[in-house]
Amino acid sequence: MLVTLDSNLRKPLYLQIRDQLRERIVNGGLKAGDRLEPSRELAHQLGVHRTTVGNAYADLESEGLIQGTVGRGTFVTPLGETLRAPRRPSRRTSPDLFWDSFFPDEPRDDSLGRLMASSVEEGIISFAAAHGAEELTSPDLVRRAADAVLRREGGRLVQYGSTDGYQPLKAYLQTRLRRDGIPVEVDEILVTHGCQQSLDLLRRALISPGDTVVCENPTYTGLWNVFDPPGVRLIGVPVTADGMDLGALESVLEQTRVKLIFCGPTFQNPTGFTMPLESRQRLLELAQRFQVPIVEDDVYGVLRFRGRQIPPLKALDSAGLVIYLNSFSKVGFPGLRVGWLVASRPVIERLRWAKQRADLHTNLIGQAVLQELGVRGLLDKWIRKSCKVYAHRQDVLRRAIERHFPPEARVIYPDGGMSVWVELPAFLDAAELLVKARERRMLFAPSRYFYFQNPKHNALRMCYTALPDDKIEKGAAILGDLLKAEMRRAGKGRPQSPLGASVALV
Amino acid sequence: MLVTLDSNLRKPLYLQIRDQLRERIVNGGLKAGDRLEPSRELAHQLGVHRTTVGNAYADLESEGLIQGTVGRGTFVTPLGETLRAPRRPSRRTSPDLFWDSFFPDEPRDDSLGRLMASSVEEGIISFAAAHGAEELTSPDLVRRAADAVLRREGGRLVQYGSTDGYQPLKAYLQTRLRRDGIPVEVDEILVTHGCQQSLDLLRRALISPGDTVVCENPTYTGLWNVFDPPGVRLIGVPVTADGMDLGALESVLEQTRVKLIFCGPTFQNPTGFTMPLESRQRLLELAQRFQVPIVEDDVYGVLRFRGRQIPPLKALDSAGLVIYLNSFSKVGFPGLRVGWLVASRPVIERLRWAKQRADLHTNLIGQAVLQELGVRGLLDKWIRKSCKVYAHRQDVLRRAIERHFPPEARVIYPDGGMSVWVELPAFLDAAELLVKARERRMLFAPSRYFYFQNPKHNALRMCYTALPDDKIEKGAAILGDLLKAEMRRAGKGRPQSPLGASVALV
Repeated sequence: MLVTLDSNLRKPLYLQIRDQLRERIVNGGLKAGDRLEPSRELAHQLGVHRTTVGNAYADLESEGLIQGTVGRGTFVTPLGETLRAPRRPSRRTSPDLFWDSFFPDEPRDDSLGRLMASSVEEGIISFAAAHGAEELTSPDLVRRAADAVLRREGGRLVQYGSTDGYQPLKAYLQTRLRRDGIPVEVDEILVTHGCQQSLDLLRRALISPGDTVVCENPTYTGLWNVFDPPGVRLIGVPVTADGMDLGALESVLEQTRVKLIFCGPTFQNPTGFTMPLESRQRLLELAQRFQVPIVEDDVYGVLRFRGRQIPPLKALDSAGLVIYLNSFSKVGFPGLRVGWLVASRPVIERLRWAKQRADLHTNLIGQAVLQELGVRGLLDKWIRKSCKVYAHRQDVLRRAIERHFPPEARVIYPDGGMSVWVELPAFLDAAELLVKARERRMLFAPSRYFYFQNPKHNALRMCYTALPDDKIEKGAAILGDLLKAEMRRAGKGRPQSPLGASVALV
Repeated sequence: MLVTLDSNLRKPLYLQIRDQLRERIVNGGLKAGDRLEPSRELAHQLGVHRTTVGNAYADLESEGLIQGTVGRGTFVTPLGETLRAPRRPSRRTSPDLFWDSFFPDEPRDDSLGRLMASSVEEGIISFAAAHGAEELTSPDLVRRAADAVLRREGGRLVQYGSTDGYQPLKAYLQTRLRRDGIPVEVDEILVTHGCQQSLDLLRRALISPGDTVVCENPTYTGLWNVFDPPGVRLIGVPVTADGMDLGALESVLEQTRVKLIFCGPTFQNPTGFTMPLESRQRLLELAQRFQVPIVEDDVYGVLRFRGRQIPPLKALDSAGLVIYLNSFSKVGFPGLRVGWLVASRPVIERLRWAKQRADLHTNLIGQAVLQELGVRGLLDKWIRKSCKVYAHRQDVLRRAIERHFPPEARVIYPDGGMSVWVELPAFLDAAELLVKARERRMLFAPSRYFYFQNPKHNALRMCYTALPDDKIEKGAAILGDLLKAEMRRAGKGRPQSPLGASVALV
């Protein structure tokens, strides 16, 4: 196929493949209707992993240059021809050459992320992203809330606001937090543009170059994207069925001066595991003994549909060492970009200053709409409704999995949150499986995506909350088929490793 | 007064004064109704600058612990008594001790900023902040726009959106930019939470530790807050009546490898100066010769009410070296937090990734409302109306200044923007003057606030756009009185320095 790879280049292999194919399409070397070699074959020819070719194809497909059809193959679309005319005004010299040497670091290889994001295409069943059931958020109620607050506040909502947040929202959050057992004062709350920003503000306000930070491994990708080396030393602690492995944490704390501990004690992302009360108390004791603050991510805590609520770390925090993060994104309003952060006053003061440098303040209209929905009891109603729907959908998924998955796949069903965690036999690579699943128009999040070190390949996260029953059923059937095929192939070729208790979770 | 200062402490002097006074108020050593010593006398006793005491008093006043009354003095309020009961739940140990040693850097001394922000108090006439005329933004039109977009988009506006921006807004911005002579493609635009965030994203995406960045000095404080040392080397270039001093810039570029040049060519903040067309072309030539990208801040460009529009640098940029920033904050919608950034694709790609790490994406409802107002022509109508009102207000201010200011104050009136720049005799310190002005319930922004190096003390910025005629008149009269008093005092004591042409602008 005339693709040549140069492993001495710093450019990732999949980008070399993608760019050479794109070049040939745009130059007319490959024409509309031409069939590309199947990714398996091209990977074999080039001596690379199949995922590498899969990622290149996924990029080209998302650019609209090629298109795959189940059972037929992958073909060049007519779009390439339209690109043959130069797009830039001709008066420009080629600035891209200049820019390539300008940036401080290499471009990020986000091929896995983009592969998972290809769910925007028509007809794909995606369990990849932690999205809620969109159909539950009633646009009319949001519209009426926006109307009410704009009437009440007049033009104030479009003028500059306070860096620490819209006061009525902060008062509402205080009530809510107190209800959850967190006795907070209003000036211990900072409103942000969501939890991703809260993490980012923590980094800039609290972290010096060379500081060590402890996170669960695996964890939310957006967390380690913020705290990525160089600059910060990231140490991963495994996650057990009882949450963060506290024995491992203690030995890290004994050996290293740690600046912050990040922890998602309830429905941890991506595993869904929850830390029991006694472990929470032990974690707090450790934090106090070693004088290390804990950052608690509680975005999924509110989505419990079974079992008893366990108090968040912040509610047990007598020493003021917990920095608590939450948002409205998982209860149905990510597009408004509103989250909050609870901490001791000295921390809030620093974070407020970081917030001012970051973007002055959080958008007022989003804050006011959420406050309005909150005080009118609509948020709580929404959450109750969501929990009911999510419990049902987990049930549908469980039945489908029981019907379609081979017994070698072990699935853990949390009492809330948005996803289940599937453990596969050690010889399987979920990222490879994803390339095949995508060909059958089904997506999930492979475990590798969530590890910042020692990646585990043989697990995956399935978020079921955004999908209707029939798609859950169909998606699980597709994945079950693929898994069974893998098991059959393994049964013939490789030695089959026993699963279940013998496979360590992390 | 029993305040003792320790200059060996790393705590700023004004904080030592503030905290000791607060301590005495809360402990009952100072009781409600007790009169504090006038700031001039306490400053004399302590051997500190009067601004230092003024800042401590301003803090205590904003906490509600003391209150000043013109002509009578400053008194302890009854609030202190209510604070005598402990505010924290007693189960907490004192975490603040811990936190003090936790942070990577010293607390920021933002006393000047807070002094300027005390305009929220009733009855103060503030020329300090660059705010627009709030009464021009019709809340009803905003409400109707919100209603329309929520009807049109349904629940989509509360769901996750695209990192690079809401597509209909980007299409509208493209039309607008092309109208301004900037032939941009949609994928060369990134929507952000305002220009402050755009600056912040530029730092994280493009700057390596140790890089050198050139800015105008003085400039927007939020700019050098983002690019502050350590980590970045900031070099200031003076601002002349023709904008950035290109001779000085050229000599910097010859001596140093510079990563980025920041420039506000139209109605530069804080001076209001504008770079003529020939200088813009020369600046671009310099940038191309030395291969250094320029970041152009054009937030005030649209507010021209006199003279001919000069093309933004980006419109003249044949080499793709200009990164262009703008926002909706100065045309009346800062509370929605929406700005945008135009650059070559490779730059946008890096910035998009930085944006994703910062906060995933910009709030959708704000983006959709602005797009709706834009395509319905309401934004342009607003801008035209604003320009008319601002031209009138500058006129009112000019007449008031001519009536009240002593001839030694030289005032520069730009053809647009939101402020005028006042140069004072060299022996005057505008920050000191601000403490006195505040006692008379009038505020402005002293020049010192805008310099990140070699601060010039004897100038100030007056933003008049948010004030009605009578307040402009009254505020200018107060400042004129103070200036005349200073001139009289100077005439008696110090040698009076001649002003005007002999005082270098920067």
